[in-house]
Amino acid sequence: MKRFELAIRNGIVLTMDDEMRVFRPGSIGVSEGVIEYVGSEDVRGEVEIDASRCVVIPGLVNCHTHAAMTLFRNAVEDQPLEKWLKEYVWPVEERLKPDHVRVGTRAACAEMALAGITCFNDQYFYMDQVAEAAVEVGIRGVLCEGMIEGFDEEKGRKALKRGVSFAEKYDGWKGMIWTRLGPHAEYSCSLEFLRRVREEADRLGVGIHIHLAETKAPVEEFIKKHGKSPVKILDEMGFFKDDVLIAHAIYLDDEDLKILSERNVAVAYNPVSNMKLASGMARIAEMLKLGIRVGIGTDGPGSNNSLDLLQDIKIGTLLQKTRYMDPTVLPAKQALWMATRGGAEALNLSNLIGSIEVGKRADIVVIDTRKIRYIPVRDPYTAITYCSSGSDVKDVIVDGKIIVRDGELQTMDLQKIVEDLENAVQELFAG
Amino acid sequence: MKRFELAIRNGIVLTMDDEMRVFRPGSIGVSEGVIEYVGSEDVRGEVEIDASRCVVIPGLVNCHTHAAMTLFRNAVEDQPLEKWLKEYVWPVEERLKPDHVRVGTRAACAEMALAGITCFNDQYFYMDQVAEAAVEVGIRGVLCEGMIEGFDEEKGRKALKRGVSFAEKYDGWKGMIWTRLGPHAEYSCSLEFLRRVREEADRLGVGIHIHLAETKAPVEEFIKKHGKSPVKILDEMGFFKDDVLIAHAIYLDDEDLKILSERNVAVAYNPVSNMKLASGMARIAEMLKLGIRVGIGTDGPGSNNSLDLLQDIKIGTLLQKTRYMDPTVLPAKQALWMATRGGAEALNLSNLIGSIEVGKRADIVVIDTRKIRYIPVRDPYTAITYCSSGSDVKDVIVDGKIIVRDGELQTMDLQKIVEDLENAVQELFAG
Repeated sequence: MKRFELAIRNGIVLTMDDEMRVFRPGSIGVSEGVIEYVGSEDVRGEVEIDASRCVVIPGLVNCHTHAAMTLFRNAVEDQPLEKWLKEYVWPVEERLKPDHVRVGTRAACAEMALAGITCFNDQYFYMDQVAEAAVEVGIRGVLCEGMIEGFDEEKGRKALKRGVSFAEKYDGWKGMIWTRLGPHAEYSCSLEFLRRVREEADRLGVGIHIHLAETKAPVEEFIKKHGKSPVKILDEMGFFKDDVLIAHAIYLDDEDLKILSERNVAVAYNPVSNMKLASGMARIAEMLKLGIRVGIGTDGPGSNNSLDLLQDIKIGTLLQKTRYMDPTVLPAKQALWMATRGGAEALNLSNLIGSIEVGKRADIVVIDTRKIRYIPVRDPYTAITYCSSGSDVKDVIVDGKIIVRDGELQTMDLQKIVEDLENAVQELFAG
Repeated sequence: MKRFELAIRNGIVLTMDDEMRVFRPGSIGVSEGVIEYVGSEDVRGEVEIDASRCVVIPGLVNCHTHAAMTLFRNAVEDQPLEKWLKEYVWPVEERLKPDHVRVGTRAACAEMALAGITCFNDQYFYMDQVAEAAVEVGIRGVLCEGMIEGFDEEKGRKALKRGVSFAEKYDGWKGMIWTRLGPHAEYSCSLEFLRRVREEADRLGVGIHIHLAETKAPVEEFIKKHGKSPVKILDEMGFFKDDVLIAHAIYLDDEDLKILSERNVAVAYNPVSNMKLASGMARIAEMLKLGIRVGIGTDGPGSNNSLDLLQDIKIGTLLQKTRYMDPTVLPAKQALWMATRGGAEALNLSNLIGSIEVGKRADIVVIDTRKIRYIPVRDPYTAITYCSSGSDVKDVIVDGKIIVRDGELQTMDLQKIVEDLENAVQELFAG
């Protein structure tokens, strides 16, 4: 019997492969960071993880967040978005230094790792710090510098320069980081700026990550100004390709959905943030029917407030059922697919990650379904989607490396991360 | 310095008293099951719980559930309610024996205890088994036999007899159980039956727990048949007093809300169940403004699927923000109040429980906010409402007795409870 570097033994394995195979019992063999075996036979390894009575899933992919915003967590809450940004977030963000972003992101990455998130799609500032923090903790990042042009040509030029510089330098870094360009939103960037972003993305061969149609008023204003919806105008200027991911995508009409489907644009669904900020309910079930690639995101810790995709998939399916007043919409299996394989596809990474298949990189999460809240685990998709929280994650493997074992972070000193975050918050908000 | 039987030391104590006092740091002294001290001074006890860097709240009150339905968890899901009940639940419920209910409820009570729920309001069958299970695990129950008359006089007579017999026998049992009468719903019981239930409740001096206005079609049918809404018709027949709790209460007009307020009827808000079954969005924010007593419920494990009020308060506030398209609605503090003090008031138990005040029975929960998902804990109400899950509960005290310590159930063998539940499920669904 072959001995793998790492063996995960005797779990219930949800592969999320094309046939959605489930092995019960199921075991996985990993060597050199790659999945070399998955199936019903027992395997042995130099290192072994006992997954008996646990459910094993591909690593969760957080399709939209601003990780460093752990700095803004649990302070000013239940406020309208504009007030929260203008009176609270933006004044503090002006004082942000690179080290704050490092510390805030490190805490977020630790929290995500402990909750089974092995890859995150992030837009913020000082993204070199974000890349370093992700690699320190050991999770993958799809990263872009947030570019708020604000209809100011000079500001836009500088932002684009920073964005391009980061994207060039870090794309493919350590096999863990991919980069994108991150124009902030349709209401904070001019069409001319977005055109230049598209050109630069083509030149660099990287994707684009943008907020789009998140709230009602800006979309209405856009239509008043340009005569058509943001999706239609951006489509006419050739902005949309399969390397674009749009976050939120709430205020879309039927024609917009058709365009997103035809151009193979990906969507990040952020149910908790959309509810917390009262943004609205996205048409996710219809998007999925149209074949649009949809992943799920936590959004930043300021508008969630946790980074817990296992809780958010539950809320995500519940919100769609409410949106359509139909309990059969977005069933548990599809919701969990969206948070794993779907997220990998939305980020164009499904050749590497997103499923437990021979040849894929080993990003794997073991969830402790021995806890009474899961019993009985008759349908494992349902058990994970409706009963779990990030606190139930037992082991996390990224690229074949165990970064969380028995609920403990293996890569960094968690206590130090917590203290650093608390100190940074004190410093930022003092006086 | 006085030595208490139990001291909870150095936490952040959210008292939920009339002034919503917060002690940070805060300590609590308990003797003979009663809170004898709460304040900023340190206290000592024969037994001590270290709550440093933890948030301490009153025990959570689950205002509506069918605990034994752990038996139906994670099997047939994402189905319309009627189909789920008729094709799946009801045929199996006909085979239910008292011991199944005992085993299913015991598991539910263990799960609730571990998640910080110290009191639950339950409607099911074989309620003597439910009472026994609650007391075994060590949490409080407000219990009623579910009475489905089905417009069949003979069936109604038998059901009422069972309901009355249970209510008489167990009210006040061991200082842990209170009883009610539980007519199932306005669409499953005749008005004549409900009138008799009201009479019997008056005679016994117990309250009433009924499902009301949960889904749209039955309310429309009721109005077609009786010319007025269920709330108006029930009010006219004198059904409503402050001892009535109605679960769901979704399809209500302005006049209905006014009646509930005037009659001081209590409401159980079940956000997860309402979303999962696509029942609709209750008008909770308006109810609270009208002074209606609102608690929050998980509903049964079949329609949630967990019994985790800490997750449900988050979903509950998110759903209200979406209902009113206003992010300021039902803020974190009010949501957490609703799950503790609000629930105790809704069940007319706030003279005994629901807040951490000198003289109240000691039902107290310590939540481990040292976990990174809570950091920074700037506003503790926000941290608990938006960042927590039942898995983060560290210690649970009911009536002065520690039933959960460091996340471990103290009162029963959890492994045995899990095995019994799995065996019962296998037996029930075999063949």
